[in-house]
Amino acid sequence: MNKNRLEAFSDGMFAIIMTIMILDLKVPAGGTFKDLQTVFPAFFCYLQSFLFVGVYWNNHHHLLHTVKKVNGKLMLANMAILFWLSLIPFVTAWVAQTDFATEAVVVYSIALLLPAFSWQLLQSIAEKTNYWSPELKRILDKQGKVKGTISLVIYASGIPFAYINPYISEGLFLLVSVMWLIPNKEIEKVLWDEKD
Amino acid sequence: MNKNRLEAFSDGMFAIIMTIMILDLKVPAGGTFKDLQTVFPAFFCYLQSFLFVGVYWNNHHHLLHTVKKVNGKLMLANMAILFWLSLIPFVTAWVAQTDFATEAVVVYSIALLLPAFSWQLLQSIAEKTNYWSPELKRILDKQGKVKGTISLVIYASGIPFAYINPYISEGLFLLVSVMWLIPNKEIEKVLWDEKD
Amino acid sequence: MNKNRLEAFSDGMFAIIMTIMILDLKVPAGGTFKDLQTVFPAFFCYLQSFLFVGVYWNNHHHLLHTVKKVNGKLMLANMAILFWLSLIPFVTAWVAQTDFATEAVVVYSIALLLPAFSWQLLQSIAEKTNYWSPELKRILDKQGKVKGTISLVIYASGIPFAYINPYISEGLFLLVSVMWLIPNKEIEKVLWDEKD
Amino acid sequence: MNKNRLEAFSDGMFAIIMTIMILDLKVPAGGTFKDLQTVFPAFFCYLQSFLFVGVYWNNHHHLLHTVKKVNGKLMLANMAILFWLSLIPFVTAWVAQTDFATEAVVVYSIALLLPAFSWQLLQSIAEKTNYWSPELKRILDKQGKVKGTISLVIYASGIPFAYINPYISEGLFLLVSVMWLIPNKEIEKVLWDEKD
Repeated sequence: MNKNRLEAFSDGMFAIIMTIMILDLKVPAGGTFKDLQTVFPAFFCYLQSFLFVGVYWNNHHHLLHTVKKVNGKLMLANMAILFWLSLIPFVTAWVAQTDFATEAVVVYSIALLLPAFSWQLLQSIAEKTNYWSPELKRILDKQGKVKGTISLVIYASGIPFAYINPYISEGLFLLVSVMWLIPNKEIEKVLWDEKD
Repeated sequence: MNKNRLEAFSDGMFAIIMTIMILDLKVPAGGTFKDLQTVFPAFFCYLQSFLFVGVYWNNHHHLLHTVKKVNGKLMLANMAILFWLSLIPFVTAWVAQTDFATEAVVVYSIALLLPAFSWQLLQSIAEKTNYWSPELKRILDKQGKVKGTISLVIYASGIPFAYINPYISEGLFLLVSVMWLIPNKEIEKVLWDEKD
Repeated sequence: MNKNRLEAFSDGMFAIIMTIMILDLKVPAGGTFKDLQTVFPAFFCYLQSFLFVGVYWNNHHHLLHTVKKVNGKLMLANMAILFWLSLIPFVTAWVAQTDFATEAVVVYSIALLLPAFSWQLLQSIAEKTNYWSPELKRILDKQGKVKGTISLVIYASGIPFAYINPYISEGLFLLVSVMWLIPNKEIEKVLWDEKD
Repeated sequence: MNKNRLEAFSDGMFAIIMTIMILDLKVPAGGTFKDLQTVFPAFFCYLQSFLFVGVYWNNHHHLLHTVKKVNGKLMLANMAILFWLSLIPFVTAWVAQTDFATEAVVVYSIALLLPAFSWQLLQSIAEKTNYWSPELKRILDKQGKVKGTISLVIYASGIPFAYINPYISEGLFLLVSVMWLIPNKEIEKVLWDEKD
């Protein structure tokens, strides 16, 4: 099996998903700063979804780095992640166009949870079908247990918060993305060392 | 001839086709779960088409793995498949927006048959211009004869079923996609062994 | 300079241009075969433009195969081709939506001529900065002189024909694309042999 | 870390951003040359933005050429550039649809400044984490100091000029792009020599 093609295909989908969202950002009719302000809530959703998918790309990059053998199960789990992520532009546009409607934000929370579950599947398949050094295993497990659990809890908490104030939900989601964006030096070091 | 570029170009088109379909999924005006329900039929079409093109990508991945030499005929057959697949977002949107109109589902059935015929051409060109081990030949022939024939028969049966109940046609198409999604361990094993 | 990135970037743009055109194909409101017939002229334009860009991709593939050294001039000529090609979806949609209006077809003819001129530039830069065997030079020159000249003459003739009957212009353009799609065994053979 | 994936992903985003802008170019309703003229201002914006992103691709190509080791910081700076660039289609459409409204051009100027700042970050990270020969360092520094400073000054000057005449701002931006498009033989030579 050809890992490069799986990466190239996934990279293509990540890049397209992240870019086409901007097409949902409706250009304001007027040409003043005030007109632009009407786009701010939509822009905020766009930024959050861009970072969310960007973090998936980043982690995909790390995880596939540890994969030597691509089998049918791994391709299926990968396809599931890409399918859930391909729904992000739709739910993002829905939240933006309904001005953070409560139930739209609930659906958005669920849309963030779904790829997270497929991701755990992908990671466990990658672990079973490839040799991981104890060091790598320890770090990826730790990341999954700490950051992964925090993320799931926050995404799920977005559902009740949407009934109190949908902006709290969206603000929490942004925090999760920022948490993942902080470079994980430990993972980098191990992946880099193993290569040598 | 450079097989990598053929793969990269095809991967790009597969990824774009699968992703842009979501742009046809119209965001509901209201922000409630009830509003979202109106999108469900369209969502079902989208999922079916996503899986359909995803299966082509998967099989393309396997088939090109067996190809060492890319000639003009193979590029032409590949281009034909990509052209037919590029029509899928259009027919998907048509089925979704006309709420599974009978004749729209008939056209959708035909749109699923067309790439299938080009695929058979691609496979026979790949077989003629490359060395395939008897084992690989046996497995790909078997897959073509069993799964391929079932798929063609079901896609064609979608036409009469559309006149009875278009949802039966779409349900059958989804079954075909799921059948292909089940990892084929035999192919994986042979492709993997041959590499060594 | 990294030829692979130039190819990957160009492949991405070719694939996107060919795929996004379908977004301009408006889904008919009704769900009958008759409704679909209204899309046929637009579909014809789409097919012609798809093949036109597809032929460029194919020739780009061949030409870049002969390139070892990528310099700034070559990247500039390549960018010019991609820019002209990126206008094809726009002019295609214009021709389709105005139902083959005379002046729209004139502009379409010009839009086909522009990348052809940039292509000649790209080929001459590729020839100057890379070693081409006399055999390769002879074949690419012959192709440029015969097929290239025929193409330019027919694209230019599309302008006067648009004033007589725009369908003649479009039919001629389709003929050119088909002429290029016929695999050129001579080029394949030389490129293949040189690789060895 | 895998530099190829960073390049492939970035290339995908560059290619998509450059191509989807054309979707914002609204097809005129009528089919005459006069109707087409109404698109000219929008076309001018499109051309300018196409060149702007194209220049980034070109420089990205050069800079990544000097990078052997990709770390998390570099990926973050790269993501920031891609995010700012993904906003270009939006601001381009806004400027075009408001017919060069003063405040829209001010925002466009800022949208050109933002990726420029992220670029300087990317370049300094690339320099710190990779070995650059004194020759390469001298040339890239010189380019950054001369061309980079001119660009920043002109992008910033687009803000006051927008209040005098927005066309002056846009004309200046086009000049900057053309300045960058002129192949830099010095850089090419050094990058090429270092490879050997």
